[in-house]
Amino acid sequence: MSHPHPELGPPPRLPDGGLRIVALGGLGEIGRNMAVFEYEGRLLIVDCGVLFPDPEQPGVDLILPDFEYIRGRLDDVEALILTHGHEDHIGAVPYLLRERRDIPLVGSRLTLAFIEAKLTEHRIQPEKRHVVEGERHHFGPFECEFFAVNHSIPDALAVAIRTPAGIVLHTGDFKMDQLPSDGRLTDLGGFARLGSEGVDLLMSDSTNAEVAGFVTSEREIGPVVDEVIRTSSKRVIVASFASHVHRVQQVIDAAEKHGRKVALVGRSMVRNMGVARDLGYLRIPNGLVVDSRDIEEWPPEDVVLICTGSQGEPMAALSRMANRDHAIRIAPGDTVLLASSLVPGNETAVNKVINGLTRWGARVIHKGNAKVHVSGHAAAGELLYVLNLTRPSNFMPVHGEWRHLRAHAKLASMTGVPDDHIVIAEDGVVVDLVDGVAKITGAVQAGYVYVDGISVGEITDTSLKDRRILGDEGFVSVVVVVDSNTGKLTAGPEIHARGSGIDPERFDEIIPVIEKAIEQNAADGVVDMQQIRRVVRRTVGRWVSDTYRRRPMIIPVIVEV
Amino acid sequence: MSHPHPELGPPPRLPDGGLRIVALGGLGEIGRNMAVFEYEGRLLIVDCGVLFPDPEQPGVDLILPDFEYIRGRLDDVEALILTHGHEDHIGAVPYLLRERRDIPLVGSRLTLAFIEAKLTEHRIQPEKRHVVEGERHHFGPFECEFFAVNHSIPDALAVAIRTPAGIVLHTGDFKMDQLPSDGRLTDLGGFARLGSEGVDLLMSDSTNAEVAGFVTSEREIGPVVDEVIRTSSKRVIVASFASHVHRVQQVIDAAEKHGRKVALVGRSMVRNMGVARDLGYLRIPNGLVVDSRDIEEWPPEDVVLICTGSQGEPMAALSRMANRDHAIRIAPGDTVLLASSLVPGNETAVNKVINGLTRWGARVIHKGNAKVHVSGHAAAGELLYVLNLTRPSNFMPVHGEWRHLRAHAKLASMTGVPDDHIVIAEDGVVVDLVDGVAKITGAVQAGYVYVDGISVGEITDTSLKDRRILGDEGFVSVVVVVDSNTGKLTAGPEIHARGSGIDPERFDEIIPVIEKAIEQNAADGVVDMQQIRRVVRRTVGRWVSDTYRRRPMIIPVIVEV
Repeated sequence: MSHPHPELGPPPRLPDGGLRIVALGGLGEIGRNMAVFEYEGRLLIVDCGVLFPDPEQPGVDLILPDFEYIRGRLDDVEALILTHGHEDHIGAVPYLLRERRDIPLVGSRLTLAFIEAKLTEHRIQPEKRHVVEGERHHFGPFECEFFAVNHSIPDALAVAIRTPAGIVLHTGDFKMDQLPSDGRLTDLGGFARLGSEGVDLLMSDSTNAEVAGFVTSEREIGPVVDEVIRTSSKRVIVASFASHVHRVQQVIDAAEKHGRKVALVGRSMVRNMGVARDLGYLRIPNGLVVDSRDIEEWPPEDVVLICTGSQGEPMAALSRMANRDHAIRIAPGDTVLLASSLVPGNETAVNKVINGLTRWGARVIHKGNAKVHVSGHAAAGELLYVLNLTRPSNFMPVHGEWRHLRAHAKLASMTGVPDDHIVIAEDGVVVDLVDGVAKITGAVQAGYVYVDGISVGEITDTSLKDRRILGDEGFVSVVVVVDSNTGKLTAGPEIHARGSGIDPERFDEIIPVIEKAIEQNAADGVVDMQQIRRVVRRTVGRWVSDTYRRRPMIIPVIVEV
Repeated sequence: MSHPHPELGPPPRLPDGGLRIVALGGLGEIGRNMAVFEYEGRLLIVDCGVLFPDPEQPGVDLILPDFEYIRGRLDDVEALILTHGHEDHIGAVPYLLRERRDIPLVGSRLTLAFIEAKLTEHRIQPEKRHVVEGERHHFGPFECEFFAVNHSIPDALAVAIRTPAGIVLHTGDFKMDQLPSDGRLTDLGGFARLGSEGVDLLMSDSTNAEVAGFVTSEREIGPVVDEVIRTSSKRVIVASFASHVHRVQQVIDAAEKHGRKVALVGRSMVRNMGVARDLGYLRIPNGLVVDSRDIEEWPPEDVVLICTGSQGEPMAALSRMANRDHAIRIAPGDTVLLASSLVPGNETAVNKVINGLTRWGARVIHKGNAKVHVSGHAAAGELLYVLNLTRPSNFMPVHGEWRHLRAHAKLASMTGVPDDHIVIAEDGVVVDLVDGVAKITGAVQAGYVYVDGISVGEITDTSLKDRRILGDEGFVSVVVVVDSNTGKLTAGPEIHARGSGIDPERFDEIIPVIEKAIEQNAADGVVDMQQIRRVVRRTVGRWVSDTYRRRPMIIPVIVEV
């Protein structure tokens, strides 16, 4: 198994007839999936998603793939294929379309409907769209064939990309529920046919490669939800992902069976379920759904609320209920059902929500104490089927952190893919498929692009480092006004500290020290403002460190008059 | 089941013959366990631990119980009983002893040895200590009987506290391993005897009350560790808690069996295992342990390292190895074994460590993929035994977040404790045991006391709120020098921004706006510096919000000349 080396430089020219693959996201992380395929100078993109920030990236709203690698070549893009409608696959599309509006968007009916609803919120009208499923389409030199795959959102697709360089199968996100609620199975027959034809490179979803065995059917959630609603004496509040149409369907069915009204809570829940219903993916009996603003008019035992916030997002309805900061006031006897996964990184937030709801007397049911969630990603047992059916000559695990990519590589090795034909690549690593062999040939820029408020890419890693220091230690700013001719103090020092835990009364101790340092400086004939700034910083920094054993950010401000 | 109401006021005078119980920590959180018992004006304290901060408490090192409730009455404290040597039970002892040096410390031999090693680091020499086990001792009006309990550290104790008000059994942290490696079983016989005598109040460990069934024996870890070491071709690195003597013993035994040397890495690991060995709790064959600084001299296949850092602590050896910032350079073929729990809140940090180690080629074995950890806390099945053996007239779940306390209360109810004799209390809630009935009668101050650097209690919730804003949004400081007579601008505005993501070149846009606002102010005859400060703050805040849709902290500094 080859894997990237820090010494990777820019890749060489792609040999004629070769296919180049560069992931700008999704390798070494779960999120911002984006793979760029290049053949004879033409480009095909698969997915364009966002990554959600972790505590090391404070204040950041979203993280995008870095488009720099393709920025000068956007006109060469034949199409952007969207495998399904999750944020980590479509969330960055509005940002890419800002750079070239008429990139053709390719996907299933529901996926394109979800992305269009999102684009509308960004006030973007896509210019070209192709709804596809189970057929072959040509996008420039790329012949693409689409296969149904089952996932935690309806209408997901895998794509086989044919060029003279060979056949690449990209699974997208998938699982292999053999009893899917919509009857839409992962097209293993199609994968098998590709396998007989000869798959030159398999790129397959690694999320659950570390998980042994098989994922339970979504169908098994239904009876649990039904039982929870049946045995609840008061309100039932179900939190779920806003795109999990099948999960929501099961809640709606159970609510209907037990004579309860349903209210949808949360902007994205209302929007997506509206789209799903309009396109026939979600069945809502007439009169069952009521406006969430009217829900307090119904007796608690007659309602089910379906809301967002299953990941403990602080502004979502569920967190606000847990903090008594929402019109719905949790009371003893209420039941809250977290019918969702616990996305890594959100454990602390979700735990807080569970404790808050419990404190107000709610019974909280979650994947830790009941079978109320099944994963959307194939586990190791299922990944082996795909490897054995497609028998790829080369394998490249995608959609995963390092631990997942390595675990998936090991599975490939166990099914007989030769170790030197297994490529573990990180974001930005260039993989060339030439003469039937996939090899790492270099690396390109693929860093994080941060979205914060309305700015994209203006927050840098330096800003984030500043935020981490400020967040941990606070700051001390020291303003001195000095005479630009003499270097003598005209006014100040004025000291302000925030978040530093320093008692402002103790500033009196340091002010004379600063004054003396500046005086000494002036006496030495120093009028260089940089020098005065250094003196102030050092004097204050040393005092804080000696007095408090802390290292807040020290901001000396020298005003010349 | 009664539970606290926000309207709880100060408690009434404790009736004669009544026992008052106030937890200053450990109820509604996992950490800083501390319970204060009061009888006839005398006090007995059980445990005095620390809580580790979460992301909402940035930059904080530790969180202590608030001693305010007992501060004026420290001379009334008869003893401080320490049930075992974990940080969440003993970590705050140095801070309490700073307030009264000669509080008698009571505990088992190993517990007192651990606390003394810790006190030495704080340069505190405890004045009074009582080593106890399985006997009765009088501390003022409190007659205490100690019972062996099994936990993830040797020598843990439960304590029964007898006063004329009745018998209270406080379990401390415990589990019920029926095949413990040191043969020291949880003393269920003793609990049963107390039960026949009549337990008036049971206070029992709730950590695993949500976990069904029984905890596997520590003994089952041994063969897994043995197998990992046997099948490893290169270095084996085992991360474990620095107090888990039995776990370390199993690693040492396996290393010895397979002819490998052992090195201990990490200050607390070296210190605690030294103490445990000296007291005979840890058996280290002669010549087996080598200095970790010499470990690179041995071939990789001949060594096992035992280190701290199993919770992803950024400064610990394991994180530094994952980041290539440690003398031990992880190489393909190395095996890292995380033989520990994953403490809630640490998931993201541990995941980063696993990915980092995997990236450098290590095989990482953890509780997610092998049986390398068992919990130290009794699960629901075992908690039921204790409830049934002691048959308490009143029950108060301790050591847990809300979810755990409620789950444990439910177990008590199922075993027949009447609901109105089950008390769910939070930190600071006053529970009085009077005439055989435990009831909530009020609440006292029990907030967080933050340790940051060398300061204790100086960091306030306001400082932390500032840190959260600074950490998420950064700040913009605006310095203006104004004439104190005219209110006219003399120098500035000087603008500095850090962590805000604002392009400094854009300050040129806002400087004239500030100048104009101050000019207008002066023209209106305003020379009030507070007013000028407000104008500057509003002007800059509005510009940042309009331009960037962000809300950094705005710091206007007005210097008068």
